[in-house]
Amino acid sequence: MADWICNGKVVETISINDRGLQYGDGLFETVAIRDGEPRLWAYHMERLSKGCELLGFTMPSKKELLEGVFEALATNGVPSTYAVAKIIISAGAGKRGYARGGVESPTVLIGGFESERPSADAYRDGVGIMVCKTRLATGSAFAGLKTLNRLEQVAAQSEVKEEDAYEGLTMDADGNLICGTMSNVFFIKDNCISTPPLDRCGVAGVMRRHIIETLHENGIQIDFRHTNPSDLSSLDELFLSNSQFGVVPVNKCGDNAWQVGEHVRTVMAILANNGVDECRQ
Amino acid sequence: MADWICNGKVVETISINDRGLQYGDGLFETVAIRDGEPRLWAYHMERLSKGCELLGFTMPSKKELLEGVFEALATNGVPSTYAVAKIIISAGAGKRGYARGGVESPTVLIGGFESERPSADAYRDGVGIMVCKTRLATGSAFAGLKTLNRLEQVAAQSEVKEEDAYEGLTMDADGNLICGTMSNVFFIKDNCISTPPLDRCGVAGVMRRHIIETLHENGIQIDFRHTNPSDLSSLDELFLSNSQFGVVPVNKCGDNAWQVGEHVRTVMAILANNGVDECRQ
Repeated sequence: MADWICNGKVVETISINDRGLQYGDGLFETVAIRDGEPRLWAYHMERLSKGCELLGFTMPSKKELLEGVFEALATNGVPSTYAVAKIIISAGAGKRGYARGGVESPTVLIGGFESERPSADAYRDGVGIMVCKTRLATGSAFAGLKTLNRLEQVAAQSEVKEEDAYEGLTMDADGNLICGTMSNVFFIKDNCISTPPLDRCGVAGVMRRHIIETLHENGIQIDFRHTNPSDLSSLDELFLSNSQFGVVPVNKCGDNAWQVGEHVRTVMAILANNGVDECRQ
Repeated sequence: MADWICNGKVVETISINDRGLQYGDGLFETVAIRDGEPRLWAYHMERLSKGCELLGFTMPSKKELLEGVFEALATNGVPSTYAVAKIIISAGAGKRGYARGGVESPTVLIGGFESERPSADAYRDGVGIMVCKTRLATGSAFAGLKTLNRLEQVAAQSEVKEEDAYEGLTMDADGNLICGTMSNVFFIKDNCISTPPLDRCGVAGVMRRHIIETLHENGIQIDFRHTNPSDLSSLDELFLSNSQFGVVPVNKCGDNAWQVGEHVRTVMAILANNGVDECRQ
């Protein structure tokens, strides 16, 4: 098991009274490290900062977080050419009770891990996914954020493992497809690219944002629109995004199958020229 | 800070890789200890067992949990005459990722704490509460359970502290009152007692269950029905329940005020004769 950096020190354990454990009172980011640099760092920091504001935490110094990332990689002997860093910020150790009594300062934990490169097959031929039975509770005050409350993703991911799928899409309480357990999803139909709105549940990934902004700069607009499982059969193409793998096409979901098409190829080509090397296939 | 009992040993810390911290992948119970006995132990164990089944954990031995409760109290020098024990079960330490990779066995943590006796005033005159702005995401796969995903309660409780209220009621995404941040709620109108259904969000408290079952045995039925904030003004009485304080009447919520009435008194008298001594006022 990896060591972590906590407030500048190498640690393996945390106080049981930490509110991150007791209540999931915290946030996290999972940052791709590529060629010695954290990818989309500014977006990770913006989401973390927004989360800190909502949860009432003081946002840690970005400079210190960045130093911590490299320290965590070095401590665990992980080369920074291709790796992943996880940053956790919790409310800190406190007294029992939902109110933050007796809390002195947030706990900042940074871990550095080796990361498996996705197979070239996934990018070339696409991946098979599923629609999960586990739904996302809807109307969350923390919609879009990566809080430490991730039990829905855990349950959905166990379905994915059971079916040996690459990823599973989760629906909101109304049956709209929202996102994958660890990715966002984009749908293509009649030359239009859309992605579900994430104002009521789901996680707004940094790669999703990068795709939206980069395509916009290239004259391609993305619609924010709901899609449900019965719409899948009428789609022309679809793809997944996350901070680690970038973009992968989807070739199968339940009874529906797709060829990897020109729109996904175009998105991947644009991303390959905008810092997401994995998409250069 | 209190020590905890973890798998039979006295500990202060837990692995940072524990999935309880990383994802809130776990459950907890907060048990009132009264006169050397854990109150409503069977109900706590039933809810925990149901949670373990849903989350895919092996339910620990109830006998060992009970021994752990007294060990935790003794370790922290807390008399078992009037105390509170917290039992946390997490998926255990594992690898990074939502799927439970590399997990060996669940982590079982038991803490024993001193508990403040609520004031006699609260039982006699009632308490002032509020309706929180923070809503409960609705359609949760874990509705009714006490999982480690409690960020909504943390946010709502911070509103309660800000207003210096005794408790705050939270609404679901549709504006129905569901429960308090740390309690359940019962409404009385035209001689009928109701409590909100908890099938889509909220925590089904053990004291709520004890009240429903005990009143039923005494020929009083409770309806499961939604109430929203605009209905408050038409209520005759209302009260809160939780495992620690039992039942307290509500005398105020926003602009609405109530006298402590005969129905709440009847409920309290029945509970006082059924193991909830605090209600004997």
